[in-house]
Amino acid sequence: MDLVAPGSEPLDVTRFDIEEAADRLRGRIRHTPVIDPGPGTFGVPGRLALKLELLQYTGSFKPRGAFNRMLTAEIDESGVLAASGGNFGLGVAYAARELGHRAEIFVPETSPAVKIDKIRSYGADVHVVPGYYGDAYAACEERAFETGAAFLHPYDQPTVVAGQGTIGRELADQLPDLDTVLVAVGGGGLIGGIAAWFATDTRVIGVEPELCPTMTAALEAGEPVDVDVSGVAADSLGAMRAGLIALQIAKVYVDRMILVPDDEIVRARHAIWDEVRLAAEPGAAAPVAALLTGAYIPAPDERVALVICGANADPADLTIVEV
Amino acid sequence: MDLVAPGSEPLDVTRFDIEEAADRLRGRIRHTPVIDPGPGTFGVPGRLALKLELLQYTGSFKPRGAFNRMLTAEIDESGVLAASGGNFGLGVAYAARELGHRAEIFVPETSPAVKIDKIRSYGADVHVVPGYYGDAYAACEERAFETGAAFLHPYDQPTVVAGQGTIGRELADQLPDLDTVLVAVGGGGLIGGIAAWFATDTRVIGVEPELCPTMTAALEAGEPVDVDVSGVAADSLGAMRAGLIALQIAKVYVDRMILVPDDEIVRARHAIWDEVRLAAEPGAAAPVAALLTGAYIPAPDERVALVICGANADPADLTIVEV
Repeated sequence: MDLVAPGSEPLDVTRFDIEEAADRLRGRIRHTPVIDPGPGTFGVPGRLALKLELLQYTGSFKPRGAFNRMLTAEIDESGVLAASGGNFGLGVAYAARELGHRAEIFVPETSPAVKIDKIRSYGADVHVVPGYYGDAYAACEERAFETGAAFLHPYDQPTVVAGQGTIGRELADQLPDLDTVLVAVGGGGLIGGIAAWFATDTRVIGVEPELCPTMTAALEAGEPVDVDVSGVAADSLGAMRAGLIALQIAKVYVDRMILVPDDEIVRARHAIWDEVRLAAEPGAAAPVAALLTGAYIPAPDERVALVICGANADPADLTIVEV
Repeated sequence: MDLVAPGSEPLDVTRFDIEEAADRLRGRIRHTPVIDPGPGTFGVPGRLALKLELLQYTGSFKPRGAFNRMLTAEIDESGVLAASGGNFGLGVAYAARELGHRAEIFVPETSPAVKIDKIRSYGADVHVVPGYYGDAYAACEERAFETGAAFLHPYDQPTVVAGQGTIGRELADQLPDLDTVLVAVGGGGLIGGIAAWFATDTRVIGVEPELCPTMTAALEAGEPVDVDVSGVAADSLGAMRAGLIALQIAKVYVDRMILVPDDEIVRARHAIWDEVRLAAEPGAAAPVAALLTGAYIPAPDERVALVICGANADPADLTIVEV
């Protein structure tokens, strides 16, 4: 495998970094299983496999990057800081508790009380900041300057991306005949890590909601650009600007980006419940939506992995197909 | 392994039958994964593993036995018959569709419309019978005499029990160091098959709701006896009389039965969602309830598998712990 992308600057995250991350994470994260849902699932050809990363600690993949960053940073009694009222906040709070670090999490006042309570339940100090995510982020950065605590970016730090990349490494072990991976994309931490692992060995395809076209816009512009984000999956995929690290990796190793409409994401979430009894969050259903819409049609023998990356949504929304 | 239990008549289901069932079922059922949820999960010592059988086709383990019975029976154009407004009805309807058989399912009028609709969605003819389960069962038997269709018993036919036993065979492959398996018990098809597989190699423990003590009562009486059944898990574990086949196996190979109260089953269901993001049905949460109550406390190094065997309940009940 090339550690340097052809005709490009060295990548910030390589397979070597992911190997090291996997060693660090051993025993700290769940090695999440893969299930073959069987022929015809979701009405498409191909040999599908679902990577059940929604069963990870805290209900999303985020602890992987959080652990890897904390285990490579110098962290004193001022602890760690992050801005997130969602999955990343949960992942950081959980990893900090497990490693015995103090954690301060900055959340926008728009975050649901249940999420804030859950972050607190891991022992983190939660600061509720007036305004939107950008305000929480700014308050968090300011606090980092004051206290010297280790700042964790949700997706644009090499150790965070390498931590998420351990999913790629596991998939390669679990599915030696893998042809294609479909991954939901927010800021790019997850796809950046997975594409850095697979490089040119396996086709890596990103899926974004039409209403959160962050990486699609960045690839078109050639650099991260601000986009408007909204819709059913904005809580997990609503990063307004793609990470530089992920963009650099995506430019060379991501085969393509697919945009899916919100109603198809909702339909995909129901299809996942109906066919496999998994309660994926909307963002985590995006790869399945890419199949349902026909935006990606596997070849009959193609081995396609779908990363189902989180389950932090209200399962009551699935009741319509309850049996 | 002994194919004949010591000091007893030959068992109706042996490891050999389960090996044959596994061969028949290959490609027809999902090989469900196991996840190690990590140290301290559910607040108990031991090295736990969850067998994710709730991800099976139709959302429960029932297709295993249904397929094995159909693949060993002579079935003509009159098809197959079963009485069940729940998981077994779904499993039979699904397997019949996959094998191209006609299926008639007899359900009591008390069955929820969503379950009846789901059974119909697999192409089965559903007969809604006035009264309770016993009435649906009687109507189904009568129909079997009329048409000569193959009758499938939910748990007391050797091929049904052997089909369910393929879960034991998978577990033995997935967890070579397995010490103990905790299994929910209704009529006994699941534990009968699993205990027939493991025999004396692995400790097999059954868990029943206090309000559905069917196998506990049968073991105490030395024979199947009618019991009153009610409570949160009666829809899946509410068999009124244990199967003879399972009882015979349980007498020699089940280490013990544990009874758990309904409120602990509800708590276990929430704990499974909170810790692993799986939407188990109440009956499938019973093994976890046995841990939460302290009725079973694993040794620190003990490898304990919990079979999470179904997910056909309303996920809206889990909303209280939504994050």
